[in-house]
Amino acid sequence: MFVSDRIKSMQESPIRKLVPLAEEAKSKGKKVYHLNIGQPDIKTPEEFFQNIKDFDEEVLSYSFSQGIPELIDSFIEYYKSYDVEFDKDDILVTNGGSEAILFSLLAVCDYGDEILIPEPFYTNYNGFSTSAGVKVVPITTKSEDGFALPSKSEIEELITGKTKAIMLSNPSNPTGKVYTKEEMDIIKDIAVENDIYIIADEVYREFVYDGLEYKSFAQMKEIEDRVILTDSISKRYSACGARIGCVASKNKQVTKEVLKLCQSRLCVATIEQVGAAGLIKVSKDYMQEAFKEYDKRRNLVFDALQDMEGVFCKKPRGAFYITAKLPVDNAEDFVRWLLTDYDINNETVMFAPAEGFYATEGMGRDEIRISYVLNEEDLNKAMNILKQALIEYNK
Amino acid sequence: MFVSDRIKSMQESPIRKLVPLAEEAKSKGKKVYHLNIGQPDIKTPEEFFQNIKDFDEEVLSYSFSQGIPELIDSFIEYYKSYDVEFDKDDILVTNGGSEAILFSLLAVCDYGDEILIPEPFYTNYNGFSTSAGVKVVPITTKSEDGFALPSKSEIEELITGKTKAIMLSNPSNPTGKVYTKEEMDIIKDIAVENDIYIIADEVYREFVYDGLEYKSFAQMKEIEDRVILTDSISKRYSACGARIGCVASKNKQVTKEVLKLCQSRLCVATIEQVGAAGLIKVSKDYMQEAFKEYDKRRNLVFDALQDMEGVFCKKPRGAFYITAKLPVDNAEDFVRWLLTDYDINNETVMFAPAEGFYATEGMGRDEIRISYVLNEEDLNKAMNILKQALIEYNK
Repeated sequence: MFVSDRIKSMQESPIRKLVPLAEEAKSKGKKVYHLNIGQPDIKTPEEFFQNIKDFDEEVLSYSFSQGIPELIDSFIEYYKSYDVEFDKDDILVTNGGSEAILFSLLAVCDYGDEILIPEPFYTNYNGFSTSAGVKVVPITTKSEDGFALPSKSEIEELITGKTKAIMLSNPSNPTGKVYTKEEMDIIKDIAVENDIYIIADEVYREFVYDGLEYKSFAQMKEIEDRVILTDSISKRYSACGARIGCVASKNKQVTKEVLKLCQSRLCVATIEQVGAAGLIKVSKDYMQEAFKEYDKRRNLVFDALQDMEGVFCKKPRGAFYITAKLPVDNAEDFVRWLLTDYDINNETVMFAPAEGFYATEGMGRDEIRISYVLNEEDLNKAMNILKQALIEYNK
Repeated sequence: MFVSDRIKSMQESPIRKLVPLAEEAKSKGKKVYHLNIGQPDIKTPEEFFQNIKDFDEEVLSYSFSQGIPELIDSFIEYYKSYDVEFDKDDILVTNGGSEAILFSLLAVCDYGDEILIPEPFYTNYNGFSTSAGVKVVPITTKSEDGFALPSKSEIEELITGKTKAIMLSNPSNPTGKVYTKEEMDIIKDIAVENDIYIIADEVYREFVYDGLEYKSFAQMKEIEDRVILTDSISKRYSACGARIGCVASKNKQVTKEVLKLCQSRLCVATIEQVGAAGLIKVSKDYMQEAFKEYDKRRNLVFDALQDMEGVFCKKPRGAFYITAKLPVDNAEDFVRWLLTDYDINNETVMFAPAEGFYATEGMGRDEIRISYVLNEEDLNKAMNILKQALIEYNK
């Protein structure tokens, strides 16, 4: 039997495709430190579970396609803390940030249209683009430049009559890059001058280090009708399994059209929405502690990497990822080898090979993405394994 | 600013688009009997909520992209009761039946490909088809024939080089039609002779009346590699808000490819999966009682319709819908009027205008879909309102 060409062309997730090797290693009793996936180990706030405990409907019925009012209100309140004022109909609850991105693409792109994305980029953007029939045109950024954007003119060279949006995550997954005011202004100007949208994936908004002030594209009032925020509670509240995100935009036509997509899939899981609505009650201390913890880990991992021969990365300022160059030809082979052939005291470590985060053939082949989502003790062990493994691998 | 042509072309859900009128009526103190949406009033089984109460993880982390093992096992066990044996990797948990349909379309159709669907059909098939860039080619069926399929040759005339699948719900939403053995054989033969898939939406499997034996396309062993089941717990367990469904197929290539789509959106809401996994423990009595209740309601609504002048429908054998012809030119106008201008003792009733369930322009304009999801007392009142309203409307 046949399958579609588009689905055949879809890459397997570089974050998840080596999971079977990890499972095999574990079945043989090996411990695997998972630095391949952005799954925080921080506790999900009690407020989430408490709201669910208090849920006492007898019939678990469809909720509103747009999302339950309590959750929409809580998003509105949350954005107010970033000086962004949304109306009730500006926010549409989605199945995680994932669906928010898919819906945004469907709303502004027709089949065969193009979007610009700085690469390396969150690998699942590929999946959503394939599903939506949208061509990803990468804006190449490089490890040696700390993944800074190229010049305005270099970016504009990539724009064609089919370009409908620039999509980017800020802070960036997988690089940890936080775009500067100047870079954001370039993107803004390009969007205005070429009449395209900015799809801003800001799920790591809370994780900006070194005292940098965080800027959201939604705060740029002069372009509020061309900014579509895609957001998620997954990272900031360590609630990845809830699959609660949203599309938020001041562009009423976009939100009206996205609502049709929301209606076609009826609603988002009700109980997880109820839980998520409770998160607005979470204290600032929770966020502050998580922030401090990640900052410590960032320093730990970055310092450890500096101490490994042939490893290169600039210090990232945000999110909880570092994309680092390794002294190997093929990082995926190395990661496989870590899982199948290497251990220290029966322990090994798993990373995401970074090649899958690039759209340009061959780029990032010697890079890995490290998610620093484990506690210090585990991170220390994992970094030691990486260091020793590189020496062993290059013998 | 612009939006995409495809999203502009997407119709608003006929089930939901008049909801604002209903909300307005309610805000004025009018009671509205909602027979527009397939939202059962039956209690969700306690086993669902109990499993959630027992969930005590501290970190709500991503679960497996394919679905949690307990839920996959429970689907396997469930299908066994229908003499269908699935392996663990044959089943992929989805965000309701909705995502199951979208993923099935993406997996077997490229952009511009075609699928045959008997019309009237579940209106959201339009949304998923638009999202997937697939053209819906309707197989027209008619109220006067009890929505029976046309002949094999008539169906085959609709097949082109781009046809990739026949998709149908059985029992049917919105008609309540249960396909006969002969009709299913015709579909099977067409699929084999034209090398296309059967995407079988069987979410109303449990609701087959009059002692008919239920047949699933998945039971046809000779075509098991071309059948893709899309399923959902929403209706059988009255858990619409859980958004738990699945794709199930013996075609290993299809499930392997659909897994890539599952990976790209990471996972389905964890807590609702945990709840859904408990449903396998629900007693047969629960299903039996729900079944009896719906059967009673079916008889009540059908008998009431027979008693209304100018109303036509054949008695449906499954699901919990009746699509009926009304003695009006435009059923949508009539439904609007019911909400805005009519009441009996400050009560009115809402239906889904059926035109939106047809792909062929102009068809179904005088039809409504009635969801008999309320208790007998309410249904009696609602049917009386319909009867009196038709007399008043046609004065």
